[in-house]
Amino acid sequence: MSDDTSASAAPSERTRVKRYHWLARYDRATVEQILDATPLAHVGCQMDGVPFVTPTFFWREGDRVYWHGSAAGRMFKVLESQDVCFTVSMLDGLVLARTSYNFNCNFRSVMILGRASLITDPAEKEAHLRTFVNGLVPGQWDRLRPPTEKEIAVTALASMSIDEASCKVRVGPPEDDEADYAFPAWAGVIPIRYQVLPPEPDPRNLPGLEMPEDVLKFTLG
Amino acid sequence: MSDDTSASAAPSERTRVKRYHWLARYDRATVEQILDATPLAHVGCQMDGVPFVTPTFFWREGDRVYWHGSAAGRMFKVLESQDVCFTVSMLDGLVLARTSYNFNCNFRSVMILGRASLITDPAEKEAHLRTFVNGLVPGQWDRLRPPTEKEIAVTALASMSIDEASCKVRVGPPEDDEADYAFPAWAGVIPIRYQVLPPEPDPRNLPGLEMPEDVLKFTLG
Repeated sequence: MSDDTSASAAPSERTRVKRYHWLARYDRATVEQILDATPLAHVGCQMDGVPFVTPTFFWREGDRVYWHGSAAGRMFKVLESQDVCFTVSMLDGLVLARTSYNFNCNFRSVMILGRASLITDPAEKEAHLRTFVNGLVPGQWDRLRPPTEKEIAVTALASMSIDEASCKVRVGPPEDDEADYAFPAWAGVIPIRYQVLPPEPDPRNLPGLEMPEDVLKFTLG
Repeated sequence: MSDDTSASAAPSERTRVKRYHWLARYDRATVEQILDATPLAHVGCQMDGVPFVTPTFFWREGDRVYWHGSAAGRMFKVLESQDVCFTVSMLDGLVLARTSYNFNCNFRSVMILGRASLITDPAEKEAHLRTFVNGLVPGQWDRLRPPTEKEIAVTALASMSIDEASCKVRVGPPEDDEADYAFPAWAGVIPIRYQVLPPEPDPRNLPGLEMPEDVLKFTLG
């Protein structure tokens, strides 16, 4: 149960994984790999005394994560005055063991703690939003109608360092207690992944418009 | 932008969707549909002054959600003394509009607020865990080595009402400002879904064990 392949130590006591610590990873490569596998994060932010968990699009640039939303949104108003938790996770499979106790899932998750800051300079905002769009579909930004000043102004953009991060990763077959391998229950893994289906053109596309090659190359996971 | 198909009102002011409120749904059928589509939730729980977001397996029974973990876990120690946020979300597609401002995703999410309670009676715990396992793979519980008293004792089980819930659901093609439909950018949706791959038997399965039919029927989404 305690294969210590975690290459590095926890960056802080509060990020140190206590439960199932043998699944913990703190190295930067693992953090980045998980962050780069999906654009969906869950941000924990205290509002009116409740730790709200908000799903949001996000992206990574170097050692920071970024997410955006409506500047009128509650989260962006209180974000800079507290530490938040930024979690990204992916379900990779159902792990059917020989006991309900070892019933599990294969997954990848990263939890980042820290103080976020808002980017307010319009040119800077626009540059990051361009990186976001082009990160999902290369070259897409320049194919779009350029943003107006107002559109940039009403978009809030938050950013946070990924320095204080911890990951949990589970892969592979079930792990039963040694004695239980003699129990005659079928065990195994049902793998789960994101599937990207063929793009569906908007019925209101102008006649003769071709789907960009990059749209077809979109992947996830 | 404001098709008011939300059949019911928000159950509380703090769950009322403020941003993109035209995507809000508060009816029980939508709440249940989203909760029943995936076993992955993100729980927001304040610990040491930080709104930790913990990914976890969960399941629904009637008007309550349940999740379990190690009884030694920090979350289960502080859960009953605060309101928590229980969020379930699924990414259904990438929505490529004609402007970066309307770049979006199709998704389903539900956010539940409230006070969770721990179930401590061993028989009650076991009954709920059985429902969880059988909910994912029908009949699976009785194929497993029965749990020991100790296994049940070290498993924490939390439960929470789904009464105070709000959903956001986005489906369909991009929504651009009317004037932008004349802009010659290709627009459309890249659908995303969970894919369940063929089960992989544990290499340590006893010889001659057959994969239960129910394992093959597992779906997600």
